[in-house]
Formats: sequence, C-alpha cells, structure tokens
Amino acid sequence: MMTYTFPPPARPVVPVEGSSDVFPVRRILCVGRNYAAHAREMGDDARDPPFFFAKPADAVAPLPTTVPYPSATSDLHHEIELVAALKAGGENLTPEQAIDLVFGYAVGVDLTRRDLQAAAKAKSHPWEAAKAFDASAPISAIRPISGPPPQGAIFLSVNGVERQRGQIADMIWNVAEVIAQASQLWRLEAGDLIFTGTPEGVGAIVRGDRVEGEVEGVGKLSFTVV
Amino acid sequence: MMTYTFPPPARPVVPVEGSSDVFPVRRILCVGRNYAAHAREMGDDARDPPFFFAKPADAVAPLPTTVPYPSATSDLHHEIELVAALKAGGENLTPEQAIDLVFGYAVGVDLTRRDLQAAAKAKSHPWEAAKAFDASAPISAIRPISGPPPQGAIFLSVNGVERQRGQIADMIWNVAEVIAQASQLWRLEAGDLIFTGTPEGVGAIVRGDRVEGEVEGVGKLSFTVV
Repeated sequence: MMTYTFPPPARPVVPVEGSSDVFPVRRILCVGRNYAAHAREMGDDARDPPFFFAKPADAVAPLPTTVPYPSATSDLHHEIELVAALKAGGENLTPEQAIDLVFGYAVGVDLTRRDLQAAAKAKSHPWEAAKAFDASAPISAIRPISGPPPQGAIFLSVNGVERQRGQIADMIWNVAEVIAQASQLWRLEAGDLIFTGTPEGVGAIVRGDRVEGEVEGVGKLSFTVV
Repeated sequence: MMTYTFPPPARPVVPVEGSSDVFPVRRILCVGRNYAAHAREMGDDARDPPFFFAKPADAVAPLPTTVPYPSATSDLHHEIELVAALKAGGENLTPEQAIDLVFGYAVGVDLTRRDLQAAAKAKSHPWEAAKAFDASAPISAIRPISGPPPQGAIFLSVNGVERQRGQIADMIWNVAEVIAQASQLWRLEAGDLIFTGTPEGVGAIVRGDRVEGEVEGVGKLSFTVV
C-alpha cells in the first residue's frame, strides 16, 4: 500500500457574526444576470429565467485581507453579490418554503476571469475556468437573519471610487425565488451558499487595487488584490 | 442566536481498493472532449486544447447500486470515464510533474442532463445544471496505481448491450497532460478527482436501466437507474 497525504477532512468554514460558530461550506451556487441593468450590460434578456453556475466549496475566501491575482487571466473582474447561507435542505420548493432555509446573509464578490469567460461563451464551453478558480469567492462573515434580506443598497468601490451600485429590491428574481429555482435543479442542503447575482458596473481590477463592498444591513467586505 | 443544523463536516469519501482507507473528495474537475471520435460526435474540433467543467464534491456517488434519475431532464446520458485521484497538489506543472500527483485511478460515469446541456450551449450559458447535479458522479473504488494508467480498453453497456468502447491510449490529451493543463487554471490539491473524458457512444438511459462500465486494469462499476 503506497502512502499518501490528504488535506484536512473538514470543509472550509465561514465565520458567523457575533458568535464563535462557523458555517461549513458544502457547495456554492451562483445565479447569473439577476439585476436588469447588469443583464443588459452582459447582453442578456432580463426576462429570461435565472441560470446557475457554481464554484468549488474550497474557492471560498472568508474575511480576506488580500486576494491573489489568479493565473491565466489578464482581465479579472469584480461582481459584488448578496450571499444567502442555508441552514437546511430541500428540493422542488416553493418560494415560501425556500425562504425558510435561510440561516443568514453575507457580502460576497464573485471574482471572474472575464477573458476566459468570453472565450468560453464564444465556443459555448463551460464557465468553470472563468468562475470556479481558487479564492474566487471572497466573503464576509455571515449575519444570522431569518427570511428575506434587508432591502437596502448593494455597492462596491475600487480604490475609493464607486464602480457598482444597485438595490436589493431591484433583483429580477428575489432571494426566495432564486432558492426555489435552484431547488428544481438540485436538492439543496445545509451548508450551501447561494450567490444571488450582481448589479451593473462590473469591471477590471489589478494587483494593488483596494476593493470594498457593502450590502446595507448585511455587512461589509474589503480586500487588496496582490 | 438562532439555532441551526449542519451536515456532518466531513467531506464525502471514496473507498480505496484493498484497504480500509478512504479518499476524501475535495473537488471534481472534468475534461471535455478527450477522445477524437466523441469530440467529433459532439461537433468539436479534436485538436482544440482541453477544456474543463466541474461537479460539486458531494455529487460523488461511490460504489452505487442504484442512482436516482435526476429532476428537470428527460434525456439523461451516460459517459464512462477514467478518473485520476490526486494524493498531492501543485500548480503550473509539467506533465512529468503532474503524473506524480496521482494516487490511483477509478472508473466513473459522468452523468449528464443532455437536454439541459443543449439548452445551455444554445445560449452560451454555464453547464452546471447539465453536469453538476446530485449523484452525477457515480464512481468505483480507487485502485492505487502510481504514474500513468493501464493502457487498456474503456467500455460501457446498458442492459447488456455495449454502448461505448474506446482505448485509454486513444486519449487526445493523456492523463499527465490533462492534469498539467488543469494545473494552469487551478492549484490542484490532494483530494481532487479528475474525470478524463469519455469515448464515443454516449446515449440516453432511463429508469430501470442497468449500467455497467469498466476500465481494464482499473476496475468496474455497475448500477441501476431508479
């Protein structure tokens, strides 16, 4: 029998605000095109049903102070997002059932290798090289909140200059609907994180840039690209 | 502080042949179009560089006797694949370095909601709804093997009728090259599984079908769709 080394068997975890608890991350699902203005800037019809992509659980980067500029890209983009953290599971849920799965919310950034995404889209290839890379999911602590998220603003700045701004109330599909839709395709489970889409204003970041994001009533997140 | 329940924090595991050891699954990366005849049947140029998609670690279904027919599809397809299990990590590797990461090999089936894949490709949307669903990665025990895989046949039958057959030697990109290419996009780690592509003959399976797959020198896998 050959010998081998394995990583720790524990799942990656995200801190829970105001608690010594941690949230073990099982899976990261992300909804595309969920604010009308961003859908338009990416060339999609905002009335389309939501579609989903994913990131590996280990791509989560909780409370990062720095995030490494990834390999294989020269066009790294920021996408600020509200993230729902699930405390329970289910499938084929109604929006009313779906919202009861929420343990709390966090602020996340869906980092994207936009050049690789464009190349994938040109060939109808999968998006993982563009979306599912290491440390591609910086995230704040999770604030325990039951039910729908606070209806505030969501915004992101780079080096103090605002780049993205939207309103949670302007989501095309609200959090309950997003979770319900995901539950038609997957059996959701405790430990799942749902990235709920980004408002308009996505753009490139480079090494040295300071990224600061906030979702009102949920939290803040800031890191430097290194 | 609200209470909540979490799944066990341990990662899913795959049995190791001839041992009481288990292999904790960290991530599942899959290469598309890696046998020339299958690339042609899917309409791709076989000379293109390999591209990757992923499945959640929890999508693994080790040694299944049954696999549930998934939701949201009426065109579930089988894709028999050789799977490499990594015992160590690295990035930006040469093929010579990459092959040293291999702990062993298994037989896997990349289950695919082909209708959802066609819909995604038509819109240049991501593939996760088609590829990353629950139990979409049935897999045999891992046979510990150092270095390249045995150069035998890979084949799959449904209800005793052969559907897919190829030769491991006919891969467009061999295992060392696939792992090296993946390491340009991700830092690979112990616990990663790499699905290395499927030969020609993919097709639909329905409830009640008996699926049997084999990679010579690696192992066998069989299950009933329920």
